[in-house]
Amino acid sequence: MATVSDILAQRFGPRFDTGKSQREQHAHTTTWLPSQAPDGVVFPQDVDEVREIVRICADHRVPIVPFGAGTSLEGHVNAPLGGISVDMRDMDRVLEVNAEDMDCRVQPGVTRKALNTHLRDTGLFFPIDPGADASLGGMASTRASGTNAVRYGTMKDVVLALQAVMPSGEVVRTARRARKTSAGYDLTRLMVGSEGTLGLITELTLRLTGIPEAMSSAVCSFPSVEAACDAVIATFQFGLPMARIELMDAMSVRAVNAYSGLSLPQTPLLLLEFHGSEAGVAEQAATFGEVARDHGSTAFEWTTDPAERTRLWQARHDAYWAIRALRPDSDALATDVCVPLSRLAEAVTRSQQECERIGLTGPVLGHVGDGNFHVTLMIAREDEAERAKAREYLSWLAELAISMEGTCTGEHGIGQGKRAYLEAELGAGAVNMMRAIKTAVDPLNIMNPGKIL
Amino acid sequence: MATVSDILAQRFGPRFDTGKSQREQHAHTTTWLPSQAPDGVVFPQDVDEVREIVRICADHRVPIVPFGAGTSLEGHVNAPLGGISVDMRDMDRVLEVNAEDMDCRVQPGVTRKALNTHLRDTGLFFPIDPGADASLGGMASTRASGTNAVRYGTMKDVVLALQAVMPSGEVVRTARRARKTSAGYDLTRLMVGSEGTLGLITELTLRLTGIPEAMSSAVCSFPSVEAACDAVIATFQFGLPMARIELMDAMSVRAVNAYSGLSLPQTPLLLLEFHGSEAGVAEQAATFGEVARDHGSTAFEWTTDPAERTRLWQARHDAYWAIRALRPDSDALATDVCVPLSRLAEAVTRSQQECERIGLTGPVLGHVGDGNFHVTLMIAREDEAERAKAREYLSWLAELAISMEGTCTGEHGIGQGKRAYLEAELGAGAVNMMRAIKTAVDPLNIMNPGKIL
Repeated sequence: MATVSDILAQRFGPRFDTGKSQREQHAHTTTWLPSQAPDGVVFPQDVDEVREIVRICADHRVPIVPFGAGTSLEGHVNAPLGGISVDMRDMDRVLEVNAEDMDCRVQPGVTRKALNTHLRDTGLFFPIDPGADASLGGMASTRASGTNAVRYGTMKDVVLALQAVMPSGEVVRTARRARKTSAGYDLTRLMVGSEGTLGLITELTLRLTGIPEAMSSAVCSFPSVEAACDAVIATFQFGLPMARIELMDAMSVRAVNAYSGLSLPQTPLLLLEFHGSEAGVAEQAATFGEVARDHGSTAFEWTTDPAERTRLWQARHDAYWAIRALRPDSDALATDVCVPLSRLAEAVTRSQQECERIGLTGPVLGHVGDGNFHVTLMIAREDEAERAKAREYLSWLAELAISMEGTCTGEHGIGQGKRAYLEAELGAGAVNMMRAIKTAVDPLNIMNPGKIL
Repeated sequence: MATVSDILAQRFGPRFDTGKSQREQHAHTTTWLPSQAPDGVVFPQDVDEVREIVRICADHRVPIVPFGAGTSLEGHVNAPLGGISVDMRDMDRVLEVNAEDMDCRVQPGVTRKALNTHLRDTGLFFPIDPGADASLGGMASTRASGTNAVRYGTMKDVVLALQAVMPSGEVVRTARRARKTSAGYDLTRLMVGSEGTLGLITELTLRLTGIPEAMSSAVCSFPSVEAACDAVIATFQFGLPMARIELMDAMSVRAVNAYSGLSLPQTPLLLLEFHGSEAGVAEQAATFGEVARDHGSTAFEWTTDPAERTRLWQARHDAYWAIRALRPDSDALATDVCVPLSRLAEAVTRSQQECERIGLTGPVLGHVGDGNFHVTLMIAREDEAERAKAREYLSWLAELAISMEGTCTGEHGIGQGKRAYLEAELGAGAVNMMRAIKTAVDPLNIMNPGKIL
């Protein structure tokens, strides 16, 4: 490590930093996982510099930990074995936008909001929105998604191609710019979600979407989580295209009301968005209203007014902060699981009951169109007993999701935090196959070791 | 091989066949590639039998060639090194349909038409439709798509999970039944498109779609391929959701008119389908009509009448036969490439010009929403000079697509036929990575050797 440090310092000067504060900022700090700082942080500016860094690290068997915006939730940026954090901050250029093809090529440090700002005048947008303003390289690495996934998919659906530097220093281009291909193994999707354990993403070709002519939003309260989920299932079977369907449980609604000055009924609530033509979104909202009423909805409102829509969705996006404000002197510990839609109501209800049983506060937010939901546990700071309870709860929840044919992680990745459940979820065969691939691509195990496997 | 033959004969009795006619039926016969028959064909009935077959073959280093419906086009089912064809014909059960979750679990020998027949009363359908009634295992293996891909994606988008027998005999489940997951490497999508070179698919969990309330179809003639492509680009940017957009060039229209007794204008033509509500599909067709007129469309008609819609789409689906009827004593040699949409008009036009220049007949059909198009070359039977010309044309076309940032194969796979272009398309880095994965998963190279790599 000392040798690598010397070489990087000489080569990158001030763009290589071993200061304590920089190192600590690059370790994971936002969940129950302890922070594990890297030995140094380097800020490359192009793919050739990334190759150099990889070669230097490989020569000396020093771990490489890729770093985007540091918003991941399962310890992805921790350095359990030490090593070099490769921060993509300076690789933040939008390289090209092909409006006719509705795609673009970006460097990995571009954030999703920066990309959408860049696209402002094109009539196009990039639809994947996890809560945080994550970097696109990081979003690809963790197979991120968010509220739009029910309509626009996850990162696996919008990454057309990647350029990555492999542990050998070789540069791989996974695909070309065609929208569709059947040319060999799907390396694009193998890299998406590989959490930096196979290579360092240095460029992304992304599919964009035309901004719809019109959008409408609806809020709709239900007597129970079950009634809300049944309404969603019925709506899908109706073939109604929804752009977003978010579930808030009663406790989340209470938090949001308090935080955002709203007066929504404090029962389970769905927040929806429809994208289409003016007539289309009006019709869709009306149809959904009927389905909702059939499922016992007590209040239903919809709007196409941009200010009103923004106000509603801002409240949803602020839900994390609203929930934190429920217990301001606590740490928030966010987790997520995903189950088949038919099991969602039961999964959410049991999650709430278990929280109550063990005496934890854990409001639920759900991307209900995908069967994906988040529990945000509020843990008194420095309270080891409560933290232990929370860790037990996380295991319980992961196992619940797996027992329902679901996954222990819908959109946060495995990282360090969910490694214990991977084999329970997929079986030894799949984990052995992942390990075989990892060993083949990264025989020295220098790429983000200690994550996923 | 002789030992394996004896063991399989003893174990599987009449379900193992080494007869010449059975072997020849299992070799590839429909393109310019010479047929290479396997040494025997076995018909397993469940995953345990597949494991047995794989173990027997692995013990004796005998190649395994998976076989679905035999409709692939790039030599996937050929046995260049001999070995055992594993025909999934008897593994043809739909194991479960989860209507609320809109998914199903099937064995690999179920064909797409059989699945849709099974789903008849559920309000759901399986949307991927390559021309042939392929098996779902085969469609996953070649990452198939078809006319609906612009709306519903390709096999990579609808396969939620796979079960496969690895060369080691181990059974891998790639994912569970959740619609979304970020749990480790995306083995599902690594297996989809791997053409049987990594393992034998023994079960698929597939995403289904609600049958839309209404469908409308439109036909629309254009003065040139360029005008048609420009209309499609404009329509996308308008955000109009199209379920299908098929291009026929003038020669294809002529063939279809003659074959199906239609009287479409013999100029480039788009055939479209819209899915949605009654009002939605009417509005979408009308909007497209306006866009088309802006781009010089000379004739535009639309209908929601089922009989009329069926007649139009039947003509499209019969186009392959219509084209063959242009020169009844010829062989048809179908190829496909895919380019970014902005290059499609130029790619199609140059493909036509090159055909004319070298004196071949090659009408063009395109899944134009994806930038994907097929050229069907009509080659006089037993005419070695014309076959040689056709082979040269195929190389020329693959290189053209690659030069336009596209792919040499949009939906037919690499197989044997396109191996020569893989490195030109993706570079040595990607091909090396594929090779490393192949070697790690199948160190004895027994799974469909001689395909892709």
